Amino acid sequence: MSEVFAFAVGLANTNASGDVLDCLFPQPFLRPQGDVLAAARSFTAGTQTVTPEAVRDAGADLAPSALLESDKPLTVVRLDSDAEIASTAEAYLKLHLLSHRLTLPNTLNLDGIFAHLPNLAWTSAGPIEVDALGDALLEARLAGEHLEVMSIDKFPKMVNYVMPSGVRIADASRIRLGAYLGDGTTVMHEGFVNFNAGALGPNMVEGRISQGVTIGEGTDLGGSASTMGTLAGGGEIVITLGKHCLIGANAGTGIPLGDRCTIEAGLYITAGTVVTLVDENGEADRRVKARELAGGSDMLFIRNSQTGEVLCRSNRRAIELNEALHAHN
Amino acid sequence: MSEVFAFAVGLANTNASGDVLDCLFPQPFLRPQGDVLAAARSFTAGTQTVTPEAVRDAGADLAPSALLESDKPLTVVRLDSDAEIASTAEAYLKLHLLSHRLTLPNTLNLDGIFAHLPNLAWTSAGPIEVDALGDALLEARLAGEHLEVMSIDKFPKMVNYVMPSGVRIADASRIRLGAYLGDGTTVMHEGFVNFNAGALGPNMVEGRISQGVTIGEGTDLGGSASTMGTLAGGGEIVITLGKHCLIGANAGTGIPLGDRCTIEAGLYITAGTVVTLVDENGEADRRVKARELAGGSDMLFIRNSQTGEVLCRSNRRAIELNEALHAHN
Amino acid sequence: MSEVFAFAVGLANTNASGDVLDCLFPQPFLRPQGDVLAAARSFTAGTQTVTPEAVRDAGADLAPSALLESDKPLTVVRLDSDAEIASTAEAYLKLHLLSHRLTLPNTLNLDGIFAHLPNLAWTSAGPIEVDALGDALLEARLAGEHLEVMSIDKFPKMVNYVMPSGVRIADASRIRLGAYLGDGTTVMHEGFVNFNAGALGPNMVEGRISQGVTIGEGTDLGGSASTMGTLAGGGEIVITLGKHCLIGANAGTGIPLGDRCTIEAGLYITAGTVVTLVDENGEADRRVKARELAGGSDMLFIRNSQTGEVLCRSNRRAIELNEALHAHN
Repeated sequence: MSEVFAFAVGLANTNASGDVLDCLFPQPFLRPQGDVLAAARSFTAGTQTVTPEAVRDAGADLAPSALLESDKPLTVVRLDSDAEIASTAEAYLKLHLLSHRLTLPNTLNLDGIFAHLPNLAWTSAGPIEVDALGDALLEARLAGEHLEVMSIDKFPKMVNYVMPSGVRIADASRIRLGAYLGDGTTVMHEGFVNFNAGALGPNMVEGRISQGVTIGEGTDLGGSASTMGTLAGGGEIVITLGKHCLIGANAGTGIPLGDRCTIEAGLYITAGTVVTLVDENGEADRRVKARELAGGSDMLFIRNSQTGEVLCRSNRRAIELNEALHAHN
Repeated sequence: MSEVFAFAVGLANTNASGDVLDCLFPQPFLRPQGDVLAAARSFTAGTQTVTPEAVRDAGADLAPSALLESDKPLTVVRLDSDAEIASTAEAYLKLHLLSHRLTLPNTLNLDGIFAHLPNLAWTSAGPIEVDALGDALLEARLAGEHLEVMSIDKFPKMVNYVMPSGVRIADASRIRLGAYLGDGTTVMHEGFVNFNAGALGPNMVEGRISQGVTIGEGTDLGGSASTMGTLAGGGEIVITLGKHCLIGANAGTGIPLGDRCTIEAGLYITAGTVVTLVDENGEADRRVKARELAGGSDMLFIRNSQTGEVLCRSNRRAIELNEALHAHN
Repeated sequence: MSEVFAFAVGLANTNASGDVLDCLFPQPFLRPQGDVLAAARSFTAGTQTVTPEAVRDAGADLAPSALLESDKPLTVVRLDSDAEIASTAEAYLKLHLLSHRLTLPNTLNLDGIFAHLPNLAWTSAGPIEVDALGDALLEARLAGEHLEVMSIDKFPKMVNYVMPSGVRIADASRIRLGAYLGDGTTVMHEGFVNFNAGALGPNMVEGRISQGVTIGEGTDLGGSASTMGTLAGGGEIVITLGKHCLIGANAGTGIPLGDRCTIEAGLYITAGTVVTLVDENGEADRRVKARELAGGSDMLFIRNSQTGEVLCRSNRRAIELNEALHAHN
């Protein structure tokens, strides 16, 4: 029996013309096997609207019983390969796969996602088409009710769709659907995680994880720490931070880092920053552009506060400092 | 027939004493002409409460039909000149004029706005007077309901009143009513736009646009980028950024900039920063306080990472770098 | 009659098993005296559930009449000493004491608070247990309703429980219950105040006040300004800022400061920063680690923009600059 790349049964909000605005997939499957694969293959490939009965008849545990027992039309997506996104429901399925931790950031083909996600007003009454928002605001007020608008965006917030286990998110508006938050991760109020980006967990995130960026186990981002993205302003290097790194408050990085690296608070390392390497004895070794250090481990970046020189210490002392800093988490 | 400066028909929330808390003006007019002017002049100047019938009788297309056909008392504001704000409804009208893009920031007389905007609790049940919030929270809980408080502020969020076309706003709580967002502007989660401030569009805003600040076409603010305001901590210079500038992540400016300027990530230029000008050959030219560069174009600001010296390069190379950076948006 | 440390009558949300999820205490008492003390002592020590009648029978003005006249089970907490937290209701009472300004940050024993605060989904329908959120999201959608999730956290936002007088809070999601906001304080959109932290008032807060940190009268934090906390990344020094300080935008401090100190925009002072002290004549005096300056007053910290050297000016000129800066608030 041939493979199915992804499959899910969902419940969509639609506009008056029947266009899908968004879709909740409570139980998505990546590369389903066994009876789920067999059941998935009983549907046609692509996006379709079916009855709950049709899903029940397919057999297997394809969706929560509340969905199967409803009287709503259901949205079924079956993707036979990780091809370019072809519908709004497909875009939502891929974002769910990431937030359900079924696949890591940068592993899915997200081509076409911007084209297939409508820009919507996300309100206390659910998603509303942007053109209809003005009337909706007026009608609510005329009815003595209040309509609250949370955002105008193509991407909704993650936790209105997916609640990964073992995480804390102090301000849910800052985590887009499609973020990957590993177990044990806390995202504080100043933290941010874009779609197709993530904290593998456990992590303390008080800074910004841009699209495409991932941070490894035990790595922490201080308040307002910045990871340069590839969408706006950043270069073409995809930033990844390894394990047990610490990017200080108001600091930032434009290069990927390996394990056990630290950037001191307030220091921004861009790919073009000229960095003086300092050896174990504190002696200046050589100068390099930071991009040459991309991916390295056991590096401590500071700016000499007497000379303004950006230094990189790569030695046991740096590691010990890093361990000491983490001990206070 | 004499001029009318601004006119609008709105729907207000009031307290038990009839004081206006806020007001929605779905269709405001700046310097109305023709039949709208004639109809506007049938009302008295200032703020008044009228019946929908009275607005219908005035003729012209003064408000959406849903408002005209309601049975609610309507708030009519007619301003014959751009004088000091004299009522809460007038304050709301001026804020609407800005967010409806009928006028640019720094063009309206906003004197008196703080005095006429009541500090309110903005809740899931609409605006509530601050003194009444404690009881409202208790009553909701006793009724088994939940009352969510979004902010305690004089200014509400823009998109609960005005939805300008062609924009995305990832976190609506960060755009105050009275912000001007031009077509094609995206404000990401870390972006912020105060009242009487704006992005003329198209712009990518991931930083903060303080009161009075405007940024021009194609100018981007990186994550947490700061534009110094005049209300708190900043000087008396009103900051304006021209076209195609890029303020890097965690960077900031305390001086206005012309077109095609870049400040590298992490660098804050204040008016008093001493800057070394570097010529096309990379030779240091002279040193000036940044305030002397205010409004200049084609400037690239960086901090030499080996000497700590803040440099300003003003040459083709800077422009080309800038264009390359923008190419990734 | 022996002392009671704290007492309050509240209304809790509970799960199906009767476990307390959160608790609203509209009128908490710290060290009650007179008839309130007598009435408080008629309840047993610790946390208990009682009828409104039992609270009425205890005499004294123990709670708002809406609570006393309800038919809901009420939660009474009587703490005879400031011991380790022993229940969820006790944790909520201590957070209320702080936000009601009955006691300052760092004066309460908060041991056990993390263990006794359940991690909850804070939604438009009130708090929901994290494990139940997935089903709740699906059920709401099946019912044609919208469930909005604001955060997944142990701590709720302050203003859903306590509304201190004389404050403005531009984004309520950034002030945790347990924050202390003094009269006259404005927290702008980028501001943040953790539990057991505070602004004594009046203050303009556009930066982050970490757990344990307090700032004194007239002290302002610029946009994204950072105060290093002790929970994550910071050292063991508890940061306190005195009166009339100004931490510039995108700046930060890892040391406590006395009165009338300024850190220029974009400069982060950590405990280990080597600082050159400059005397009244602008002459370099000596170099010290910033931690040696902890708690000092009348200090102006800047980075020389030509040499990268971090300077501390401690003289009248600094004070005058500071006063000039504050004049624009």
